[in-house]
Amino acid sequence: MEGNRKLQEEKVFKDPVHRYIHIRDELIWDLIGTREFQRLRRIRQLGTTFLTFHGAEHTRFNHSLGVYEIMRRIIEVFDGREYWNGDERLLCLSAALLHDIGHGPFSHSFEKIFQTDHEWWTRKIIVGDTEVNQVLRRMGEDFPQKVADVIEKTYPNKLVVSMISSQIDADRMDYLQRDAYYTGVSYGHFDMERILRVMRPTEDQAVIKNTGMHAVEDYIMSRYQMYWQVYFHPVTRSAEVILSKILQRVKTLYADGYSFSQPPHHFIGFFEGTIGLEQYLQLDESVTLYYFQMWQFEDDPILKDLCQRFMNRRLFKYIEFDQHLVLNEWSRLQELFSQAEINPEYYLVIDSSSDLPYDFYRPGEEEERMPIHLLMPDKRLRELSRESDLVEAISGKKRTDHKLYYPAEWLDSPGHEEEKQQIKDILFSPSENKEADFGNG
Amino acid sequence: MEGNRKLQEEKVFKDPVHRYIHIRDELIWDLIGTREFQRLRRIRQLGTTFLTFHGAEHTRFNHSLGVYEIMRRIIEVFDGREYWNGDERLLCLSAALLHDIGHGPFSHSFEKIFQTDHEWWTRKIIVGDTEVNQVLRRMGEDFPQKVADVIEKTYPNKLVVSMISSQIDADRMDYLQRDAYYTGVSYGHFDMERILRVMRPTEDQAVIKNTGMHAVEDYIMSRYQMYWQVYFHPVTRSAEVILSKILQRVKTLYADGYSFSQPPHHFIGFFEGTIGLEQYLQLDESVTLYYFQMWQFEDDPILKDLCQRFMNRRLFKYIEFDQHLVLNEWSRLQELFSQAEINPEYYLVIDSSSDLPYDFYRPGEEEERMPIHLLMPDKRLRELSRESDLVEAISGKKRTDHKLYYPAEWLDSPGHEEEKQQIKDILFSPSENKEADFGNG
Amino acid sequence: MEGNRKLQEEKVFKDPVHRYIHIRDELIWDLIGTREFQRLRRIRQLGTTFLTFHGAEHTRFNHSLGVYEIMRRIIEVFDGREYWNGDERLLCLSAALLHDIGHGPFSHSFEKIFQTDHEWWTRKIIVGDTEVNQVLRRMGEDFPQKVADVIEKTYPNKLVVSMISSQIDADRMDYLQRDAYYTGVSYGHFDMERILRVMRPTEDQAVIKNTGMHAVEDYIMSRYQMYWQVYFHPVTRSAEVILSKILQRVKTLYADGYSFSQPPHHFIGFFEGTIGLEQYLQLDESVTLYYFQMWQFEDDPILKDLCQRFMNRRLFKYIEFDQHLVLNEWSRLQELFSQAEINPEYYLVIDSSSDLPYDFYRPGEEEERMPIHLLMPDKRLRELSRESDLVEAISGKKRTDHKLYYPAEWLDSPGHEEEKQQIKDILFSPSENKEADFGNG
Amino acid sequence: MEGNRKLQEEKVFKDPVHRYIHIRDELIWDLIGTREFQRLRRIRQLGTTFLTFHGAEHTRFNHSLGVYEIMRRIIEVFDGREYWNGDERLLCLSAALLHDIGHGPFSHSFEKIFQTDHEWWTRKIIVGDTEVNQVLRRMGEDFPQKVADVIEKTYPNKLVVSMISSQIDADRMDYLQRDAYYTGVSYGHFDMERILRVMRPTEDQAVIKNTGMHAVEDYIMSRYQMYWQVYFHPVTRSAEVILSKILQRVKTLYADGYSFSQPPHHFIGFFEGTIGLEQYLQLDESVTLYYFQMWQFEDDPILKDLCQRFMNRRLFKYIEFDQHLVLNEWSRLQELFSQAEINPEYYLVIDSSSDLPYDFYRPGEEEERMPIHLLMPDKRLRELSRESDLVEAISGKKRTDHKLYYPAEWLDSPGHEEEKQQIKDILFSPSENKEADFGNG
Repeated sequence: MEGNRKLQEEKVFKDPVHRYIHIRDELIWDLIGTREFQRLRRIRQLGTTFLTFHGAEHTRFNHSLGVYEIMRRIIEVFDGREYWNGDERLLCLSAALLHDIGHGPFSHSFEKIFQTDHEWWTRKIIVGDTEVNQVLRRMGEDFPQKVADVIEKTYPNKLVVSMISSQIDADRMDYLQRDAYYTGVSYGHFDMERILRVMRPTEDQAVIKNTGMHAVEDYIMSRYQMYWQVYFHPVTRSAEVILSKILQRVKTLYADGYSFSQPPHHFIGFFEGTIGLEQYLQLDESVTLYYFQMWQFEDDPILKDLCQRFMNRRLFKYIEFDQHLVLNEWSRLQELFSQAEINPEYYLVIDSSSDLPYDFYRPGEEEERMPIHLLMPDKRLRELSRESDLVEAISGKKRTDHKLYYPAEWLDSPGHEEEKQQIKDILFSPSENKEADFGNG
Repeated sequence: MEGNRKLQEEKVFKDPVHRYIHIRDELIWDLIGTREFQRLRRIRQLGTTFLTFHGAEHTRFNHSLGVYEIMRRIIEVFDGREYWNGDERLLCLSAALLHDIGHGPFSHSFEKIFQTDHEWWTRKIIVGDTEVNQVLRRMGEDFPQKVADVIEKTYPNKLVVSMISSQIDADRMDYLQRDAYYTGVSYGHFDMERILRVMRPTEDQAVIKNTGMHAVEDYIMSRYQMYWQVYFHPVTRSAEVILSKILQRVKTLYADGYSFSQPPHHFIGFFEGTIGLEQYLQLDESVTLYYFQMWQFEDDPILKDLCQRFMNRRLFKYIEFDQHLVLNEWSRLQELFSQAEINPEYYLVIDSSSDLPYDFYRPGEEEERMPIHLLMPDKRLRELSRESDLVEAISGKKRTDHKLYYPAEWLDSPGHEEEKQQIKDILFSPSENKEADFGNG
Repeated sequence: MEGNRKLQEEKVFKDPVHRYIHIRDELIWDLIGTREFQRLRRIRQLGTTFLTFHGAEHTRFNHSLGVYEIMRRIIEVFDGREYWNGDERLLCLSAALLHDIGHGPFSHSFEKIFQTDHEWWTRKIIVGDTEVNQVLRRMGEDFPQKVADVIEKTYPNKLVVSMISSQIDADRMDYLQRDAYYTGVSYGHFDMERILRVMRPTEDQAVIKNTGMHAVEDYIMSRYQMYWQVYFHPVTRSAEVILSKILQRVKTLYADGYSFSQPPHHFIGFFEGTIGLEQYLQLDESVTLYYFQMWQFEDDPILKDLCQRFMNRRLFKYIEFDQHLVLNEWSRLQELFSQAEINPEYYLVIDSSSDLPYDFYRPGEEEERMPIHLLMPDKRLRELSRESDLVEAISGKKRTDHKLYYPAEWLDSPGHEEEKQQIKDILFSPSENKEADFGNG
Repeated sequence: MEGNRKLQEEKVFKDPVHRYIHIRDELIWDLIGTREFQRLRRIRQLGTTFLTFHGAEHTRFNHSLGVYEIMRRIIEVFDGREYWNGDERLLCLSAALLHDIGHGPFSHSFEKIFQTDHEWWTRKIIVGDTEVNQVLRRMGEDFPQKVADVIEKTYPNKLVVSMISSQIDADRMDYLQRDAYYTGVSYGHFDMERILRVMRPTEDQAVIKNTGMHAVEDYIMSRYQMYWQVYFHPVTRSAEVILSKILQRVKTLYADGYSFSQPPHHFIGFFEGTIGLEQYLQLDESVTLYYFQMWQFEDDPILKDLCQRFMNRRLFKYIEFDQHLVLNEWSRLQELFSQAEINPEYYLVIDSSSDLPYDFYRPGEEEERMPIHLLMPDKRLRELSRESDLVEAISGKKRTDHKLYYPAEWLDSPGHEEEKQQIKDILFSPSENKEADFGNG
């Protein structure tokens, strides 16, 4: 294809999950070499999870290569089959490689506090004035736009979109395996080789031959376990809570005209809603941690304390959140915190997580999820949960989990004993106390 | 033992290499919680290796827990045997956990440029005014000193020293496996469970029952392969060369009174030889990368270029170094670089690596290495290479490798074509050219 | 304990699943050395499964050592805890090691055709005149009886019984992992180390601390997948069908006074219901296969054909069994087979499998299964499915699968074309045909 | 290609070592279905090794599929490159699949005692009147002959021969990994994916690109370890000694006109040198073990005892063989055995093993081994040991190991105490005694 050349000699990256990542196209090789892509080396894949699972120090660079590699293997299977258009090969590969290019450090917390959106940045990096854009444009002026469309799911060929954004896509298959590998948990394994072997293109989505149903079941179960064991781990969420509160505090202090020893230069664009692409690209995890490091020495006691907590892993403890607590005791609890001279806005935090392990399509719902379809011997498609007892059993069952985070060691420290005792009486009424009993769960 | 309590409930960390890290002593748990130990989360185990093997993003925190765990298992095997003194259990565990506590970011380059030494800092952190020291002192006023002595190999009980510093110790056994796991290479595996099972205490060292000889051979071979495949990988060394040159440049600019846009506050103690413990502890990898990020925008073209190279992985290429080149062409080559207006001090660099995969004791040599001894059925000890043909074959064979690093894309850029051609003629005379042909080797 | 001595030096077996099997008691070592235990080397763990998954060639010897090893590790966890009686250690280990000692070759088919029962033989071997019995009696005259009682679940201490016979016991945990390892399927993995770490003795059963619930969920899912992917694989069942028909044919021929070239000496005890222990012990898989080998040359065309099919893996094909077929077409189908001169009793076979992946206790039901209980922080026990959404979802859901086996290549061979066409019309009416499309599924 | 059709749908076998075995050609599928190939399911890959490593129960069927799969992958790498002739694809695949088709049960012992040769039988099966031959002939009348020639290394295209018979071929690469997998040892792993990626066809052999040298070193080391840890394990050799002695005894008894209760029908062809193909094919491991089972009840005390030893794993013990023993004490030792009424010919056996881990070509030597060549960047070939220090170090070093086997428990039994004491005095003079201290290690 014009704009791309085959590399003279295939290049490979050694990868612990897929053994090797194979690069045969100059386009892909050059995309990896751009500064925007190299920047992903400075952004961890799992944000604060490394504070729970010390192995989870891998970055989005790592994962992006993995998604590319899985996409490459899917295309090998599709090659020559009906519905698959070989001309879209490099489009698929580029979209796979770049699908996370807009992520910043600790995206979840940044997005919550600053109302930003990594998907918006992904588009900006792909279509804006960047090295990535220059490389992509070799394939044609409209190629960057197409790549962005695939990632945003607005590309007309729904088959292509489904290969990177569906309930069983290259993205999910990589991260489940990769996150399991680096955390060391025994969940997250499934027979990807089998799934790829039975994946087939259809007019508007990638489907799975029915003979591979059990491998898909296993994948769904892995996903379920990874969510509750790793992604929603309460200790990780505690670190996330502290991180969010640091950002919230800095934002508030800035708005209040606080005089920083280490002014938040890299954050001002976020505070004022004026952040540009170049500034966004500079704000990686190293830079963020540099500030947290410095802010341990600020005068503001809340910022100082929260940063010390984050840097030295002195996290909040948690209890299972009790529904009736909200209604009856919440304002009393906040009041007691204030009386004990600790700001409840920063030190008494509810965090909720919920997951829908698998759902079939329900037209008209807010976030419609494309379900997984099986290709039957008679060529009809059947939605997975109609064939699998296991998936049917968990289908559409949303599980939600609420936790209340608070600084446990403060509760046991001297001063304000009376208020603290009342707080404890509220928090630790029988049977709610369910603290984690060890390092990472 | 006074000063330590058993934890009520064992705590564990999920670890990909040893499956679980088991913590049963409050002393160990509290050491892990100190800010000096948590700081190791911000220092990668393998420095610049992540630029070659993208999986190598694991930190010294990771490795330190692993060494502790292996030590714990060795002690389980030794427990109740002659020569083993159970009173030294916590000393061994503490030394294992803290043996790398003095490491800073990219230690190798920092030590070379600033004549510092992580072992000196290890002692400072253990015996100085730190949280680590406070925790250790619970075991007795002289306990921190003992831990430092074990790490420095001056502790009187040589058996204890050998468990953490010998040719087959808890440190090496962890890093070989861990680095193999995270890089994804297939070397680095050996049967540690078997080695531990046949390890025995003797009066002045830990030895291996002769029935475990083959497992030890396998370990020696793993070490050999990891050295040449991973630790001395030429691409990693290229990144290391650039890193050293950045530090050298900053030091020179500072000495010359250059006016930095982003002044090197955190480095000044190093430049002036006045760095204190607190300042040292602040200088982690995030802080270092923050400066590199900023210095991409300095006016000095060398600093700016080198930082951009490091951040965006635009590394130097290399050729095998040719002995006769030094004698005959070296000054000519430097002259040509200068004529072409590129500073050879920063852009023409020789790097050498050498390894002695296994050596037996040679009294009087500069760095005496304690050899591995086998415990024979008749209770005599035999030095490993006398029993193993394989080890004997490679014993004492020092292998050295010299490479010359240079900016390849500059050589092909416009301007000074004549000098560049002459440089190429010297560098690429027949048969020396042996460039790497792909991502990571 | 009298009757047993600790071995001077621990002995180990290298095991692919548990890495090492550790033997520290002379009693166990001597049990392994008995001829009855060594005989298990000649009986495959998974019967005819090797004809589907070629890796499944492992024997009951293999598995029995594995169950012993898991039991040993459970006891290590229980040691010193309330409810655990250290005096029952060797009883548990012996029962674990010997729980399958009564199995013969291809037990499933033999038991069906000859109305025998491996559990009855297990007791015979343990309490009868055998080497196993002699070794056990060193521990006391009633020790063999106790071992047999534990295996038969009649031993008074229900905690001990549950360790080897419950929904999560040493037996199941070994075979799931072992069968997965040897077949090579990616199911069957779960975090046994974690499960063992959180297993606790209670008054009448082993339970799991609630913090280990997810590991147990994963175990239940593994079991579910192994049942349908491996144990009930339709190709394995085809081989099983043929095996049963061989035994049925030999039995019939013997009853009819048929004159064998190779008389079924080793089977006569079964035919006549007079088989003794010594004869039973001789009938291992080698002996069985010797006869099948020989009977390929018998005159009886059915025996000859079935033996050739089994030896050369010329199995029956199958279709999903259709309920209405039984009512409407079954006798017609049999009639057509007879008209086409092939005996439907041997060549038209229905096989059914069904599994209940997890069930809680329902008093009064035919086969009561002891459910898995979680130990909550407040020390109460909770039945698993009340805490786990996943388990609750599949609880009590019996899945049954019926298949009809027939000789496909015969249907396409010349002769009796008219009948064969009518047979095909019945069998292959739309949508029922669901033949396996490859080697092993 | 005529004579072969692509299968409509690829068929796969689940394989623990290569994950999947992929079959795309009807020719290969049909070869696997022949009775001669199915017979390999009844012949263990590692003979008596299962008595040392209980996991080693895998068969030659297993291994043959693996060699086929590796060959298939090599061909994928070669496809389209110079020197590779696509027309020889099916020839290579067939030869890989069938290279061990002539093996009988426990080949090593059978060949030693009966002067037979599995390679001779391989040719017979391929070119004789067999199902294998019928399938092969579809590809042309001379195709079976060509397949036999490749296996016998007489085929003119030496590149093709080297792919299955060289120091680094599909056969060795499969068995090292497979035997490691099933025994569970941690040796035997190397990066085959990397080796295949850098394997290249040349005019007369497959070579390895020099960038893959370390992977090849690792392979050579694996081989070295597997030889001494698994293949030459002294316990396995003890079982082999007993097996050989059983065969020798039966042969002798038959020659002497002994009247067997269970006459050795299946062996007579061997005894009389008249064995035909059909008879050879019947003699699988089940049949052999059937006889051993029966002969436990013969009158001849030697045959009876040896068979009981083999069936119940009551093996001989061993001592390291002492050179001077032969010269000085050997006849005395034999004499003492005879005096103590035990036949030294069957109960006092020397067994020797030796291995040359890697050797380069030495013209004129008895068994010339084709060395491994590296393909250098300048396209020249370099023999491996000239580039690899590690391989050079062990090159040409033949290691030989002699052991003396004897029935230890007999030495300690009552009767002939005086002779037995003298025997012990000779055998256990200081330092020679080096008995294995556990099950398999």
